[in-house]
Amino acid sequence: MTAPWITYRPEIRVLDCTIRDGGLINDHCFDDDIVRAVYHTCVAAGVDYMEIGYRASRAMFASGKTGDWRFCEEDVVRRIVGENPSPLKLAVMADSGGKCDWRQDIAPKSQSVIDLVRVAFYVTQVPEAVDMIQHAKQQGYEVSANLMAVSTVQEAELAQALEVLGKTPADTLVVVDSNGALYSEQVEMLVKQYLAAGKDSGKQVGVHMHNNLQLAFANTIEGLIHGANRVDATMAGLGRGAGNCPMELLLGFLRNPKFKLRPVLQLLQDYLVPLRQKMDWGPSVPYHIGGQLNQHPRAAMACRAGPDKDNYVDFYDKCVADI
Amino acid sequence: MTAPWITYRPEIRVLDCTIRDGGLINDHCFDDDIVRAVYHTCVAAGVDYMEIGYRASRAMFASGKTGDWRFCEEDVVRRIVGENPSPLKLAVMADSGGKCDWRQDIAPKSQSVIDLVRVAFYVTQVPEAVDMIQHAKQQGYEVSANLMAVSTVQEAELAQALEVLGKTPADTLVVVDSNGALYSEQVEMLVKQYLAAGKDSGKQVGVHMHNNLQLAFANTIEGLIHGANRVDATMAGLGRGAGNCPMELLLGFLRNPKFKLRPVLQLLQDYLVPLRQKMDWGPSVPYHIGGQLNQHPRAAMACRAGPDKDNYVDFYDKCVADI
Repeated sequence: MTAPWITYRPEIRVLDCTIRDGGLINDHCFDDDIVRAVYHTCVAAGVDYMEIGYRASRAMFASGKTGDWRFCEEDVVRRIVGENPSPLKLAVMADSGGKCDWRQDIAPKSQSVIDLVRVAFYVTQVPEAVDMIQHAKQQGYEVSANLMAVSTVQEAELAQALEVLGKTPADTLVVVDSNGALYSEQVEMLVKQYLAAGKDSGKQVGVHMHNNLQLAFANTIEGLIHGANRVDATMAGLGRGAGNCPMELLLGFLRNPKFKLRPVLQLLQDYLVPLRQKMDWGPSVPYHIGGQLNQHPRAAMACRAGPDKDNYVDFYDKCVADI
Repeated sequence: MTAPWITYRPEIRVLDCTIRDGGLINDHCFDDDIVRAVYHTCVAAGVDYMEIGYRASRAMFASGKTGDWRFCEEDVVRRIVGENPSPLKLAVMADSGGKCDWRQDIAPKSQSVIDLVRVAFYVTQVPEAVDMIQHAKQQGYEVSANLMAVSTVQEAELAQALEVLGKTPADTLVVVDSNGALYSEQVEMLVKQYLAAGKDSGKQVGVHMHNNLQLAFANTIEGLIHGANRVDATMAGLGRGAGNCPMELLLGFLRNPKFKLRPVLQLLQDYLVPLRQKMDWGPSVPYHIGGQLNQHPRAAMACRAGPDKDNYVDFYDKCVADI
């Protein structure tokens, strides 16, 4: 074996989803100050995309309680980025299942500072997702298809879903480990399957990993090794539950000299260390248990938010009794 | 690809080194209470070995300051385990380089409750290590050869060292990532190399991973995939600097029904959560930086112990200026 890791693959693109995934912890209530800091850090660090939030339907979420980054209206995004005079591309996530009024809210690209629309859906929502992908593409955006919670999808369903998604105009198919339950061998299998599904139409494959088992960084590397060229990460791993692949680890691993670690470290100490006083995220035992049982993180999040956050045996007993 | 992870390899043995590696944070000053709790937990959880500390020379360490678990004298160990009426085997680590008075302190097995002697050495200390291995084997122990900091050893040296170690009577050769610097592809390469070196004499290969890059668990799995049958882990990942592969993740991954997770969770909430109030271990940004620069963890440990523990930019600048 030679040492392929000594060099780099120029086609790899990094997407920061700190504010989007982190918003699932705090009802998307980030101050403009930190959103702006993440934006400027991404620019300085050479990150390729920043996903700034969801584009959700105002009708579906109680206003007042839900922060701006659930909706990412054009004027809100411009409050942070202006006309975005930088090489950093901007992304929003649009959920299927009635959470996004996409026919109305995904307007022509010429009216928007957003570059990439990431369509997120469960396997039961593939038909709507296909419509959303086609719509976003027609409006002029880059589009990514993010089939969530793939660790819960059966092989026959996945094969069918990938066949359908392969024919859409999506630019990227993303392996999304919502439950943080995948081991490396499964990542290899999935990335190869997604690559095969996207081959004829020249799609890229991405990975979006959660850290329930302290494997988000490892699984991201595994995805890269097997051909994924689109990778998600977040500052200090901020993200729902156990969080995501930490940007500070990913940029240190990718040896493309265009990536700069120092601005990320500055952001961590200025913004993420203080934020940790107010928000709980990152791997802890309840997430380990939930990840290994391939469960949605909501039970572990509820545990970590309460007075029994370190009562691991009680949480384990409840999980085991539940299955 | 089928799903090999659905079953288990009965020949895998798990070694707990919580007290031994954790002792490098607190000068080996653990109360008997927690050592006893770790011992009983290992027994209840079906762990195969517990490494209870070092067997160091009293002459080399200031007594009074250094705790009992640096020396593991026979009467001290028996204070915890009695005659060890359990299937759990006990291990001590013996360092080369004059730290262990091994001719005197590794007495015949018939006089000891210890089962396994792990000889730890740097690549420059191979000759003494070979003598130590032979001595321990003659005295009747299982013996393991732990070449430390392998991420800093050059290929030609490693090939030579493995050729020599392959001819010793050691039962196991351990891939030791002291700096927490290895990526999965390197783990694969090393495990295969160690397996080849030990093949003729029927040696097992082990892995001892540190968590500087949040890869300890991932690299342990990687070692298992490529044929390592001896794996080290610690409770809550307790261990020097960024700590080790967490036992609670490892046991959840290994599907041998003899392993029980629940006693480990009980220990974590009763002993390790309180201990975290007094001791700092586990992955944090200074360890990420040190790991990616393949440095000994001492600089990051010093940073984490001081008032600038979250001044990442300053630490990074110093590290980069140093190299």
